[in-house]
Amino acid sequence: MMKIDLKIDTKKVRQRLVDFVKVAVNKAGFSRGIIGLSGGIDSSLVAYISAEALKPENVWGAILPYKTSSPDSESHAKLVAQILGIHIIKVDISPMIDEYFKMFPSADNIRRGNKMSRERMSILYDHSQYLKAIVIGTTNKTEYLLGYGTVYGDSACGINPIGDLYKTHIRQMAIEYGIPEEIINKKPSADLWCGQTDEDELGFKYEDVDKLLFLMIEKKYSINKLIDCGFSKDFIKKVTYLIRKNAFKRHTPPIPRVR
Amino acid sequence: MMKIDLKIDTKKVRQRLVDFVKVAVNKAGFSRGIIGLSGGIDSSLVAYISAEALKPENVWGAILPYKTSSPDSESHAKLVAQILGIHIIKVDISPMIDEYFKMFPSADNIRRGNKMSRERMSILYDHSQYLKAIVIGTTNKTEYLLGYGTVYGDSACGINPIGDLYKTHIRQMAIEYGIPEEIINKKPSADLWCGQTDEDELGFKYEDVDKLLFLMIEKKYSINKLIDCGFSKDFIKKVTYLIRKNAFKRHTPPIPRVR
Repeated sequence: MMKIDLKIDTKKVRQRLVDFVKVAVNKAGFSRGIIGLSGGIDSSLVAYISAEALKPENVWGAILPYKTSSPDSESHAKLVAQILGIHIIKVDISPMIDEYFKMFPSADNIRRGNKMSRERMSILYDHSQYLKAIVIGTTNKTEYLLGYGTVYGDSACGINPIGDLYKTHIRQMAIEYGIPEEIINKKPSADLWCGQTDEDELGFKYEDVDKLLFLMIEKKYSINKLIDCGFSKDFIKKVTYLIRKNAFKRHTPPIPRVR
Repeated sequence: MMKIDLKIDTKKVRQRLVDFVKVAVNKAGFSRGIIGLSGGIDSSLVAYISAEALKPENVWGAILPYKTSSPDSESHAKLVAQILGIHIIKVDISPMIDEYFKMFPSADNIRRGNKMSRERMSILYDHSQYLKAIVIGTTNKTEYLLGYGTVYGDSACGINPIGDLYKTHIRQMAIEYGIPEEIINKKPSADLWCGQTDEDELGFKYEDVDKLLFLMIEKKYSINKLIDCGFSKDFIKKVTYLIRKNAFKRHTPPIPRVR
């Protein structure tokens, strides 16, 4: 495969993102932010950026585990909060989720995962109101494009500093910020059920799909050119399908004009 | 005050909305729809439009009461479903809401109301996935503009046929469809706490604010021209403030570009 370089100028991007958070939070009428901390690399990075932009005393990290969540998720989230000196809130989502699925015991993992994601959103927003802190989003560009996430769930936010960064860029930024290696190096997972990993569920590696997405979206390569670069037809087809199928998640709902 | 006529051609608009639902549902990859039925005029109208566009057997009405919800809300929702012959789902949201506020017993009505609104959204979306039915939204233009609603709650949907109709238009369309008078004539209420009415909470009447909004937004009248029409400075100021303050609810969250 052709060598495709996704390197960014991490110092420059860091400044850009910090400035964005400062301005956007203020413009929205807030001085505080709240972030759902999963212990993963994306939300950790957003916490680092937010603490730098808003000062740690104005940032809340919310830890929202379900009873089957990996203990690592919580310990990594706490580690980030401790390093940064931001506030921590912890709410166990199990009681609300379990009450609901008592009524629908045969629901599969996907339904359960989506319900958990939306429960977390609603808790973040409840605390947002209570603390007067804007919800700072943690969805990266790879997830947006592939629709890997729950609509009105993990993608719901007031502002999102990392929405134009591919997963590959997130890793570069995490290194720039000195985020602990155990967080950078663990397998990305939504941790919605035991053993889940993003790459297993998607069926490809972030490293590979980011290269393809970058050439498709940013460079606007044709399919033939992508094949020339060494991407298989099947891979291109699968990714194109996901982008189209999930386009609705990236837009406000259609409304008919009546005038 | 100047006479301001908000009459629409209800037959023409009806056809426009039915055509929109047919096309938009299909374009989104669905043939079925699900609507949160509150028993109010807006969601009733959306059910009528959807049943006409998709056929009753492809429409689900979800009744999602909390233990303090008015019994009228449920009986009116059932009445609409029976008239139209659409499916009914009923899920009591009390167990999930009560589990959550056990942890936050001092939470006020606003927090409770917003949590309920988001719980309903998450149940609608859970059933959307399970039934392969798109969530059809029920927020009208007056609510959008004034930000009267819960972000990622009642305004969350896949498509919204009535998002460009002011509340005044909703009433005209309800008459066009022959919606039962007890639904048309009751006081609009989000029914999030006992005795709540929209107009008490907003501090003005829909009839008045719709005239103001229509001239401000659709006709782009200046403040001086609005005063000449007989609107008070205070009323114009209050409404302008609400429109600006809630603008974020109508847009996707800001994301900084990094390239």
